Amino acid sequence: MKNRRKFLQTAGLSTLALSLPWSESLAYLSSSKEEKVLRVALMGLGSYASRVAEAMKDCRRAKLVGVISGTPSKIAQWQQKYGLEAKNCYSYDTVHLLKENKDIDAVYVITPNALHKPHALAVATAGKHVICEKPMAINADEGREIVAACTAAGVQLLVGYRMHFEANTLEIVKKQRAGEFGKTLFFQGLSGFIIGNPSQWRLNRALSGGGAMMDIGIYSINGARYMLGEEPVWVTAQEEKTDPVKFGEGIDETITFQLGFPSGAIASCLSTYSLNHLDKFFLSGSKGFAEMQPSTGYGPIKAWTHAGPLDKPHVTHQTTQMDEMASILLDGKTPFLPVNGEEGVKDLQIIDAIYEAVRTGKKIMLPG
Amino acid sequence: MKNRRKFLQTAGLSTLALSLPWSESLAYLSSSKEEKVLRVALMGLGSYASRVAEAMKDCRRAKLVGVISGTPSKIAQWQQKYGLEAKNCYSYDTVHLLKENKDIDAVYVITPNALHKPHALAVATAGKHVICEKPMAINADEGREIVAACTAAGVQLLVGYRMHFEANTLEIVKKQRAGEFGKTLFFQGLSGFIIGNPSQWRLNRALSGGGAMMDIGIYSINGARYMLGEEPVWVTAQEEKTDPVKFGEGIDETITFQLGFPSGAIASCLSTYSLNHLDKFFLSGSKGFAEMQPSTGYGPIKAWTHAGPLDKPHVTHQTTQMDEMASILLDGKTPFLPVNGEEGVKDLQIIDAIYEAVRTGKKIMLPG
Repeated sequence: MKNRRKFLQTAGLSTLALSLPWSESLAYLSSSKEEKVLRVALMGLGSYASRVAEAMKDCRRAKLVGVISGTPSKIAQWQQKYGLEAKNCYSYDTVHLLKENKDIDAVYVITPNALHKPHALAVATAGKHVICEKPMAINADEGREIVAACTAAGVQLLVGYRMHFEANTLEIVKKQRAGEFGKTLFFQGLSGFIIGNPSQWRLNRALSGGGAMMDIGIYSINGARYMLGEEPVWVTAQEEKTDPVKFGEGIDETITFQLGFPSGAIASCLSTYSLNHLDKFFLSGSKGFAEMQPSTGYGPIKAWTHAGPLDKPHVTHQTTQMDEMASILLDGKTPFLPVNGEEGVKDLQIIDAIYEAVRTGKKIMLPG
Repeated sequence: MKNRRKFLQTAGLSTLALSLPWSESLAYLSSSKEEKVLRVALMGLGSYASRVAEAMKDCRRAKLVGVISGTPSKIAQWQQKYGLEAKNCYSYDTVHLLKENKDIDAVYVITPNALHKPHALAVATAGKHVICEKPMAINADEGREIVAACTAAGVQLLVGYRMHFEANTLEIVKKQRAGEFGKTLFFQGLSGFIIGNPSQWRLNRALSGGGAMMDIGIYSINGARYMLGEEPVWVTAQEEKTDPVKFGEGIDETITFQLGFPSGAIASCLSTYSLNHLDKFFLSGSKGFAEMQPSTGYGPIKAWTHAGPLDKPHVTHQTTQMDEMASILLDGKTPFLPVNGEEGVKDLQIIDAIYEAVRTGKKIMLPG
């Protein structure tokens, strides 16, 4: 308390800060002076990187300081737009030089899915914390390689699960854990949109590692796990393809899949690139239910239960995500829902099983 | 026109009828004078029969005139309550005597599922039209036997698909057929409730022929077919059982199932006796969507599309059903959605395939 008062006097902020409620003044103080800020470089400057960069403008604890891109003109644009120092900008060929850069703490890998592994490994080798966009890799084996590489390099690894920090989502998850819905025996996740430009990397197997499942279906997989609070023990899946030109070999257009859980709960989900209006979660229990629609879109999440609507205000997901990830990486904070590499691997194991179930027509058992 | 005016004059109704819009005056006339009324006996006097009897009080073209029951005290009660003549009341042992009764046109079989076949056959043999509650039988072979018996006896056969006459349901089905939702590629049906009294016939395999699927899951099967307007070509299914005491051998508690259609559409459905709040249909197409919740319950159906809510007023489903069935049986009217024996067999074929898919873990192909 003595230190605090002294600081307030020194900063000439005593009147202002003391007039605020205690928690707010603490937050004010900590944001201005006490907490370290995570200095982040973005790797891969596509549209999602732009979204993250814009969201980080409002971050309290994370700051965009650098970029890694294969396109020099993009680097120039980003330098100007975000006031980045030239020394914090790299090409893919010079990523190893990050090792000598003391002004970057973490790299957020936002390149196409199939490049996550080599890029994450390069970042880890350069001694920086890795934040890897979902899916963490294109299969569980690659995911495990990333985990092992980060462990070996002594850096932390997080996956860009922005929904794990979204306030309404967390409220429903906490209600589920508290038993407010009774025994939750059914989860339904519908994840899909009509994908545009057929020449984009998401429809190129070599870069995407798969189709809708990798991109959007993973939300239902991940949602089933956090909404039910269990790990699945079996997987079944069915595929349909109505446009084999747009969705070539190895690019799934539509897959329905089911996950069975130890409690007897079943998750029944849809992943598709051929229908819009598909961003819905539904959790049904013996005492009540929860619905979310939109459930994972970038905009405000709309959630309600048998007892009525939830009303946590919308905060840009990536802003919250990056602030929370700063707390995890810098302070060792444990998030309510994990966003580490093991979490990423769990989803990839299920994706592997879904593809195997489609290929073989069989129920695939998981270690659970 | 000449005849109509003459009739109006004769009936002394010219002023009243002509003051109404044309369609209303026609309906008024036809209900009062021109149309025959279907004289119905109910077979099996459980709670659903009571619901049908109450609903028939408001029917324009169907009238409850008799009952068939194994319980003499129930017959006495029903005689008094509904003013039934003793000569129109039968026990199961005297059903064959219906043949000599000129005052009964059709028998609505509302006995436990496994008794539908013997009872339907008995009614057909007695020369009366058969209305059979869903499921029409406990498997497709039995269903086909009923169809054949009715054909041989020269009587008509209808299945108690009340939703096929529900106004909001029909409006959505017609919008789908008109292409308002574009290419419909996904249907989701959630059908379930927490079943009470564990000693009821629905949980007795010998009487029910199965569990939730026979009773409530069939709504999602039937809904998938009428909402998509196609017949499935493959079936997959998964079962979970959390209470093997309440849900014994051969009584399914929870099954998720998927139906694949020639267009590439998939129906993903849930049938359960262990969760409430499950009475939802969702149809998703390239241009829009439709949702219904409740979708098949006895009360008002709530339906909406991407363009807004539907607003057809609620009419007790069984009232509409029995009036429409009178038109089918007496006038040869063709309903927009079929309710004949072939329709019943189609659902039973899918139920057979679902149980086989659960048993074998395999994708079961259907003739389509």
